Amino acid sequence: MSETLEQLKEILGEVSDINHAASVLEWDEQVSMPPGGSEARGRQLATLGKIAHEKATSEEVGNLLDKLKSEFSGSDSDEAALVRVAARNYDKTMRVPASFVAERAVAASKAFEAWVEAKSKSDFSIFRPHLEKVVELVQRYVSFFPPADHPYDVLLDDFEPGMKTAEVQEIFANLRPKQVDLLKRIAQVKQVKDDFLHKKYNEKKLWDFSEKIIAEFGYDFSRGRQDKAPHPFETTFSVDDVRITNRYEADNPIATLFSAMHESGHAMYEQGVNPAYERTPLESGTSLAVHESQSRMWENLVGRSLPFWEHFYPEFKKVFASQLDGVSVKAFHKGINKVEPSLIRVNADEATYNMHIMLRLELEIGMVDGSIAVKDLPGIWNAKMQDYLGITPPNDAKGVLQDVHWSGGMIGYFSTYALGNIISAQLWEQINKDIRDLDEQICKGEFGTLLGWLRGKIHVHGHKYDPQELMQRVTGSKIDSAAYVRYLTKKYTDIYGL
Amino acid sequence: MSETLEQLKEILGEVSDINHAASVLEWDEQVSMPPGGSEARGRQLATLGKIAHEKATSEEVGNLLDKLKSEFSGSDSDEAALVRVAARNYDKTMRVPASFVAERAVAASKAFEAWVEAKSKSDFSIFRPHLEKVVELVQRYVSFFPPADHPYDVLLDDFEPGMKTAEVQEIFANLRPKQVDLLKRIAQVKQVKDDFLHKKYNEKKLWDFSEKIIAEFGYDFSRGRQDKAPHPFETTFSVDDVRITNRYEADNPIATLFSAMHESGHAMYEQGVNPAYERTPLESGTSLAVHESQSRMWENLVGRSLPFWEHFYPEFKKVFASQLDGVSVKAFHKGINKVEPSLIRVNADEATYNMHIMLRLELEIGMVDGSIAVKDLPGIWNAKMQDYLGITPPNDAKGVLQDVHWSGGMIGYFSTYALGNIISAQLWEQINKDIRDLDEQICKGEFGTLLGWLRGKIHVHGHKYDPQELMQRVTGSKIDSAAYVRYLTKKYTDIYGL
Repeated sequence: MSETLEQLKEILGEVSDINHAASVLEWDEQVSMPPGGSEARGRQLATLGKIAHEKATSEEVGNLLDKLKSEFSGSDSDEAALVRVAARNYDKTMRVPASFVAERAVAASKAFEAWVEAKSKSDFSIFRPHLEKVVELVQRYVSFFPPADHPYDVLLDDFEPGMKTAEVQEIFANLRPKQVDLLKRIAQVKQVKDDFLHKKYNEKKLWDFSEKIIAEFGYDFSRGRQDKAPHPFETTFSVDDVRITNRYEADNPIATLFSAMHESGHAMYEQGVNPAYERTPLESGTSLAVHESQSRMWENLVGRSLPFWEHFYPEFKKVFASQLDGVSVKAFHKGINKVEPSLIRVNADEATYNMHIMLRLELEIGMVDGSIAVKDLPGIWNAKMQDYLGITPPNDAKGVLQDVHWSGGMIGYFSTYALGNIISAQLWEQINKDIRDLDEQICKGEFGTLLGWLRGKIHVHGHKYDPQELMQRVTGSKIDSAAYVRYLTKKYTDIYGL
Repeated sequence: MSETLEQLKEILGEVSDINHAASVLEWDEQVSMPPGGSEARGRQLATLGKIAHEKATSEEVGNLLDKLKSEFSGSDSDEAALVRVAARNYDKTMRVPASFVAERAVAASKAFEAWVEAKSKSDFSIFRPHLEKVVELVQRYVSFFPPADHPYDVLLDDFEPGMKTAEVQEIFANLRPKQVDLLKRIAQVKQVKDDFLHKKYNEKKLWDFSEKIIAEFGYDFSRGRQDKAPHPFETTFSVDDVRITNRYEADNPIATLFSAMHESGHAMYEQGVNPAYERTPLESGTSLAVHESQSRMWENLVGRSLPFWEHFYPEFKKVFASQLDGVSVKAFHKGINKVEPSLIRVNADEATYNMHIMLRLELEIGMVDGSIAVKDLPGIWNAKMQDYLGITPPNDAKGVLQDVHWSGGMIGYFSTYALGNIISAQLWEQINKDIRDLDEQICKGEFGTLLGWLRGKIHVHGHKYDPQELMQRVTGSKIDSAAYVRYLTKKYTDIYGL
């Protein structure tokens, strides 16, 4: 290997080590840290972030990349991908002045505090000036980059490398009328029962069952663990130490199971990345949407399917005999797939979830290109909720103020959730072509062939290919919502007898 | 404050942040990390260590210290102490070439592996060449420093700043005959019973009781926590996040209680350091011995005293009614203070513990000044064990190979354990002069006055004063074993009716 590349890998390896150390500190903050620890922890994370940033943006890295870009251009090798991704990251970071980053961090911190207060009082006016500042900063951020077809492209690219606003709009434009139509048809038939999901379930038994499921999926507990935290998340310290968190909610106990499946999907992706990519910019999943496709696949395509419960239900019913007395596996399967338009995105079912995302995407694009003013957001939000889901939020806390993302300056993030759903179904069609008896395997609790497919086609590549290129390689086409519409239609036709 | 000092504090603050981040990673390694994580964790710690070292030894730090040393010389202010300690740390680090540090790390790693094998096979010859290398490296380390009265002074100074070999030898020379004499007198009278300590105790109940005790001591759980780990230890992430670990041993269940008291003693020291010293070289306890004086005080002077158990025993006996059936508080107090010469240092009682340390100190000094050859260690060890404790190890695993310290190059460390015992009793006499009704307070479970005394006299000062200076300020004399002899004699006269 070239000596220049070795030098680059040495520096980027240290940056990776520091970032992973920061991840350990953040995990500890959520899982273990006593309340007193937070002030010092903030300082420690700031110092690690500063050092990682200094190293990643050093002149030396720039010089090495300049030499390497010509050496490796046009190749499909791992080394070429490493140089390409490193050069893109470097270019992005260097375009944004340190003073702007500092200003944005301060603004985000204030906006977060204001959002917490605004949400608790359900008063958008408290958040409004802060969100206006966030939008202004986002527009300035966009201005540091070369003009794009749409200013939102610049933001999207940070989460979905290479993806264009027009592509996402087209995907969603195809999806929206079909998903709206499906929802209308479901609304006209008899609702399914799910009262048995809202009884008291023993927390410890649910937790243990969640770990049983994800261990059978193939989440490797010798290279990971599940801990309790306020919110479920996945975090990576190395390919051999990928952890997840989970929680128990008394009013929705079953969520513990699906959160474990969801996070294990993220975690199995990270556990499956080529170990040779460790300590390089290729070491993680390629994008948020592809990551989300993995979590949604295990949570929904697998975990909310009838074959899955054909396998697990007998044992689950033994553990929770009184709660599930008289509930057949089919009735249980219907219950966990109940469709009901609701106000809160994170509680939405599969059939309505994407509607919440499309609404947010439209507002974000409007804020960024100036066609929507922040002051008008609550009204537009409520109108669109009525339009897409037939319900209107009773207040802003359950409407425009529900999500934390904008307060942190994360504009461009939401669509990755919906893209993840779409990709998961698109992959699922391909998988079912390649593994003809997949349903039978799942019925028997055999997940090894499925995981092996995902490992070989998706996981092992880490960040080598950008999302659209990866999808083209694996499915023969770019991201497309058709498979997702087919999946939803078939699923709910069966469940609701449409 | 001077701008130069601000600049120094900025850099040292970052070094502190990085070191604390490394401590979080090490804590996680012991408490939470899945087995797969160890390789990457080693790399991450190495990177953090390298960066902290680079920052701490930068030319900039040297230049700032040069300016500051004259500015602050001779003052008793916090700033002067900060500069003095920082300058000493800098000087020490700069004297030792990086190539030597790397060579020592490799040798220590190999020596550790050899020690593990040698101990498991009880074969000193496996460890011998590695220990010879360790001794050679220690001698080379000493050669980087200006000539001292004794080469061992250089090593001791790393753990007990300012302490001289001659001082330690004198302290121990005074102590040894009196402690040997006490042991002989105990051996001549009837042994106490402790069979009730070796029954089965419920782990969870013991753990909860240990937390009850240390919470009453004043260990602040809102700024700390206790977790399970292979070995008990205390670790500091900031003055407001000081954690301890503990374990359960089936053959010695009560150890869980005393380990919690011991580690909480370390932790309360760290929780009590002046917050203004955070992120400076003054932010931690002043030396290993003074630290150990705090842990031993809470474990032994408090936790193995009759007044302590007058308070806790009734409740303890309720929790473990069957194990303690018919055992009075006086009998229990005798049982937990049973004296019995034994082979293994970490299991030794208060009356014999220091003998194990004196033996090691003599061997260490001999190795360092060349008067004892490594090959002769097993024989000398066994002869001294017979001389001091009247027993001879049946093999080297239970003799010269029992401790890990030498394999890691830690020569100069052991005496801090015995000095800690000595200091704890010396402080205890002073405390009892200042708090006349201390025993009555402890009988009532009131520990606030005691902790307040320690906070104000010891903890708050962090590393501002070196150990001998601190002892002079607090007790009016330097470290002296007389109080410890009085304490042991009084205690065992009562227990054994000497």
